[in-house]
Amino acid sequence: MAFELTKELTEEIKNLIEQEKDDAIIGLLNELHFADIAEVLEKLNTTEATYLVKILDSEKTSDALMELEEDSREDILKNLSAKEIAEEIEELDTDDAADIINELPKEKAEDVILEIEDESHAEKIVDLLRYDDDSAGGLMAKELVQVNENWSVPDCIKEIKLQAENVKRVHSIYVIDDAGKLKGRLSLRDLMVAPQNFNISKIYIPKVDYVTVNTTSDDVARVMQKYDLEAIPVVDEIGRLMGRITIDDIVDYIKDEAEKDYQMAAGISGDVEADDGVLELVKARLPWLVLGLFGGLGSVYIMQGFEEALQKFPILFFFTPLIAAMAGNVGVQSSAIIVQGLANDNVKGSLWDRLLKEIGLSLINGMALGVLVIVFGFVVGQPPLVTFTIALSMLLVIIFAALIGTFVPIILDKRGIDPAIATGPFITTSNDIFGIFLFFYISKLILGF
Amino acid sequence: MAFELTKELTEEIKNLIEQEKDDAIIGLLNELHFADIAEVLEKLNTTEATYLVKILDSEKTSDALMELEEDSREDILKNLSAKEIAEEIEELDTDDAADIINELPKEKAEDVILEIEDESHAEKIVDLLRYDDDSAGGLMAKELVQVNENWSVPDCIKEIKLQAENVKRVHSIYVIDDAGKLKGRLSLRDLMVAPQNFNISKIYIPKVDYVTVNTTSDDVARVMQKYDLEAIPVVDEIGRLMGRITIDDIVDYIKDEAEKDYQMAAGISGDVEADDGVLELVKARLPWLVLGLFGGLGSVYIMQGFEEALQKFPILFFFTPLIAAMAGNVGVQSSAIIVQGLANDNVKGSLWDRLLKEIGLSLINGMALGVLVIVFGFVVGQPPLVTFTIALSMLLVIIFAALIGTFVPIILDKRGIDPAIATGPFITTSNDIFGIFLFFYISKLILGF
Repeated sequence: MAFELTKELTEEIKNLIEQEKDDAIIGLLNELHFADIAEVLEKLNTTEATYLVKILDSEKTSDALMELEEDSREDILKNLSAKEIAEEIEELDTDDAADIINELPKEKAEDVILEIEDESHAEKIVDLLRYDDDSAGGLMAKELVQVNENWSVPDCIKEIKLQAENVKRVHSIYVIDDAGKLKGRLSLRDLMVAPQNFNISKIYIPKVDYVTVNTTSDDVARVMQKYDLEAIPVVDEIGRLMGRITIDDIVDYIKDEAEKDYQMAAGISGDVEADDGVLELVKARLPWLVLGLFGGLGSVYIMQGFEEALQKFPILFFFTPLIAAMAGNVGVQSSAIIVQGLANDNVKGSLWDRLLKEIGLSLINGMALGVLVIVFGFVVGQPPLVTFTIALSMLLVIIFAALIGTFVPIILDKRGIDPAIATGPFITTSNDIFGIFLFFYISKLILGF
Repeated sequence: MAFELTKELTEEIKNLIEQEKDDAIIGLLNELHFADIAEVLEKLNTTEATYLVKILDSEKTSDALMELEEDSREDILKNLSAKEIAEEIEELDTDDAADIINELPKEKAEDVILEIEDESHAEKIVDLLRYDDDSAGGLMAKELVQVNENWSVPDCIKEIKLQAENVKRVHSIYVIDDAGKLKGRLSLRDLMVAPQNFNISKIYIPKVDYVTVNTTSDDVARVMQKYDLEAIPVVDEIGRLMGRITIDDIVDYIKDEAEKDYQMAAGISGDVEADDGVLELVKARLPWLVLGLFGGLGSVYIMQGFEEALQKFPILFFFTPLIAAMAGNVGVQSSAIIVQGLANDNVKGSLWDRLLKEIGLSLINGMALGVLVIVFGFVVGQPPLVTFTIALSMLLVIIFAALIGTFVPIILDKRGIDPAIATGPFITTSNDIFGIFLFFYISKLILGF
């Protein structure tokens, strides 16, 4: 609990590695939790980290490797032989093992699989490789405790003790029939409080939540959250028990998804981090900036179309960035609320109701902001008609931006496209352009330049 | 698993409620999972939902109430008497029970507590009420299985069976000494595979992760995620075992936090949803729009200061929204990456390295975008010096915006302020103003208007 990786400790470890003092390193680190070892690995360069992975116990380093960012893990694995990687994989649960194999280049992956000594472990890993990453099959592990409905309670208890040795967390004991099909579950607690003379088909709970190997990760996460499940069994197309997914994998998945949505809203594509290389960051950021640039050039073009206003109403051009900012901000607010609502499935009522609500909301916000613009105009001594024009067209731009921000995600969602792409630069940019056009168009109608 | 709430089913339920056909309703709904009942409650109006809660089994409805949004829950609770609420609370774990009591008006809360029949349950709930919402004490439940280190194994098993009846998920068995201090844990699996003639002080695992009642929720979530824990015990200031926190509460917490960050980045304060009332939404959105408006008025003021450029270089004013948008987009990108990095604790290296990296990154992005501006200028036949000026000042604005976006969150974080507030309108608005100023200032230097 109290582990803290200080600068001094990092320095000490780096020095010990440089001097190849293996015993001292093992003494210092072998008692640590794997998550703490992962923290240490992250602070080292690849050569140092590889050195550590080689000399420390694979039982610790295998799990520590799984905690690392994919990039750092790949760098270390590149420096390990197929045999060394196989040793790490022997210690991992099948789901993590399959994830690592999937990250390796094809040829090395095949070599590693052949080097795994435990044949049944290798078989299970190979079975998992055929599933899509983004499905329950890709998330599940083969490690679980299962009993046959026809077993007697004493046999069952013996068998459970045996199986439990290989499973980190038992959670539930699944009950299958002779064909391997999932029939139900036995909870450990129920088993503990049950009379000894019962047998399995009598005491199992036939109601059990499950997903199939093809269920999407998103749906798995939704079901496990909704029903507060800590583990869920996975069956194949004909109901045979194939594996199970535990909540810790889902916690990681939920966090990753939330981060992806957040990045998308900020105009960053791909899954980058603060410590990725400059070129990777450019690749993730530049496309959205180019989109923004084209939007900006679009507004240059629009404003040139209203050039005649320059002489009589230059103030309109001073107000343009304000109008664009308002259109962008309102659009992002509306879309963020709708995107979250869609994700949580709590966007209720008809489209018509929503339309009226957004208009009502925008009228209140727009009028409040309009009053501030009028006060400002009065204080700096702008011509009242110009001030009024700006306030009115800003109000209309706000309503318009709110509607775009609300309905673009809804339409995308109905067409099966992830609405989250609509919360970022996409909405901001299109609202900028439309907002500026609307602003000048309305001003022209009222002021008649 | 296969439950789906169709429009027809919702209609049927509404009709049955209207006709007060209690038996039919109970037949239809009593077998459902509480999470499904929660889904039904969400589709009903408050009167209908209250009716359901009154006639269905409290064992189901109490958990269903916990799944509802706070607003909907409060509306239903308003219509229930203190006695009826107490009946729901009897069925809940102490952490959920305390949460509900905390949501009630003070007087009603006191009435409800007095109506709880199970005295020991009431005692535990009252104990929980004294903890801060945002602490481990506020998250924990009193339900857990604990054994004394001095017990024999047979006594212990008997005791565990008894205690397990009241605990939904056992997870770990905690070991305490005579003073109630946490000594370690017994895993259920270890207990199952252990020889029967051992005793507790011999077989317990003295190493156990724990948090204290004052640990912040954020730290609890971090520790449980880092160490993949499914439950963690909570001790008081002198190490006595007070309760435990389970992973399902942390999953909800992580999701809520991610949603809050996302909303903050979108310029929405408070925790609002698509289906909240118009006034609530205005309250959450208007303050940020007002901030944006002041920013916009600031740029009006700046542009008025460069009014003399209107005659000779009106094109600069057409480009201003583009410059502002670029400054905003770049700032949001940089701050989003840093805010996530700070949250995940993977912002490494010195500030100086980061400065160089952001400048390098911005130079690449800025030059790529600059080339596009130059191509555009060439195509539409702008004077080359003006085009060059725009491209160069845009490049400088991009560098500047990236630095602001990177270092404002870092500085906020160092001062103990949540850096997430810096990713939204705050960065956009300040970058708009500074960007526009820089743009005109540099243009003035080069073009000399």
